[in-house]
Amino acid sequence: MATDTGSLDALIQALRRLPGVGAKSASRMAYHLLQHDRGGAELLSQALRQASSRIHHCARCNTLTEAEICDVCSDPSRDGTQLCVVETPADQSALERTGAFRGYFYVLMGRLSPLDGIGPKEIGLQKLFERAGDGTVREVILATNFTAEGEATAHVIAEGLKARGLRVTRLSRGVPVGSELEYVDAGTIAHALSDRR
Amino acid sequence: MATDTGSLDALIQALRRLPGVGAKSASRMAYHLLQHDRGGAELLSQALRQASSRIHHCARCNTLTEAEICDVCSDPSRDGTQLCVVETPADQSALERTGAFRGYFYVLMGRLSPLDGIGPKEIGLQKLFERAGDGTVREVILATNFTAEGEATAHVIAEGLKARGLRVTRLSRGVPVGSELEYVDAGTIAHALSDRR
Repeated sequence: MATDTGSLDALIQALRRLPGVGAKSASRMAYHLLQHDRGGAELLSQALRQASSRIHHCARCNTLTEAEICDVCSDPSRDGTQLCVVETPADQSALERTGAFRGYFYVLMGRLSPLDGIGPKEIGLQKLFERAGDGTVREVILATNFTAEGEATAHVIAEGLKARGLRVTRLSRGVPVGSELEYVDAGTIAHALSDRR
Repeated sequence: MATDTGSLDALIQALRRLPGVGAKSASRMAYHLLQHDRGGAELLSQALRQASSRIHHCARCNTLTEAEICDVCSDPSRDGTQLCVVETPADQSALERTGAFRGYFYVLMGRLSPLDGIGPKEIGLQKLFERAGDGTVREVILATNFTAEGEATAHVIAEGLKARGLRVTRLSRGVPVGSELEYVDAGTIAHALSDRR
């Protein structure tokens, strides 16, 4: 395009940094904001600046927070003997919604993914080992996703924690509640069979 | 989520103002920026602010520009007797890439869409009528999209311009170059038949 639209081009390029946003989506977003939602553009600009300057990692559980220690970690009514390891804050929320877990969390903010250059250092495994070895934690529950990368991450963490003498458990695999066997994939049924109780 | 993540929640809400971004995408974007791309967050914040403050509508063709009159409208080598009406700057770019048009443009920045509350006033038809009636324009080429809304928009503009004594043409409909009839939809073939030359 022409030289008179430098800041439009810059905006489109910046929007492409968002995950899942390509050239077409970015230009659609830019035109939408400039044409119909200048207030939204201003709001987003401020929200980005504010979040970027205020949010950092919780010193205990590694999740994103504005405080030194996040709300969950600051809650003294929780059970300090149980530590649940999840990949993301969204996974943590999913577990919290069940109301079935009252221990503390450790949020990896990712998973091991050697092909993407994400190793033990990038997801802060050392910090997790220190957290788990605080003397209070008795059981570490691995709740990483049941994907290839999530399983590999759980395996590496389990090895490291067992070497430190901690009890390590994993969420059970099996048939989802409310589902009919006919529609459940074979791998899940095989796991449900071998883990039967 | 907890009260210690106010600016994270605000960022997620602000990202949802982008077209095509729902709750899940917005939180994925927010976590990505805060976890892996703080530079991108800063860049996007600045780009939004800059674009929002610098970019406005071209006084002649209504497109988005940083100048009073955009580059295309400022080019004296173009043919002032032809004015091509398009819906968006992206449509204008598509026509420019053909190299087949050397007149000026008028960019509606939208289309008539009564159900969405977009009427003649919202897409600045009065400004278009004034632009087309400058005494130099002889022919107005309607290049709105060949969708229901684009066709309706073209129809309304054509009525208005004909009442002002201007020659109004429309891009031809027909079989796309390089396509095989077998795979072209019936509506397109029917138009290609009736508009045969």
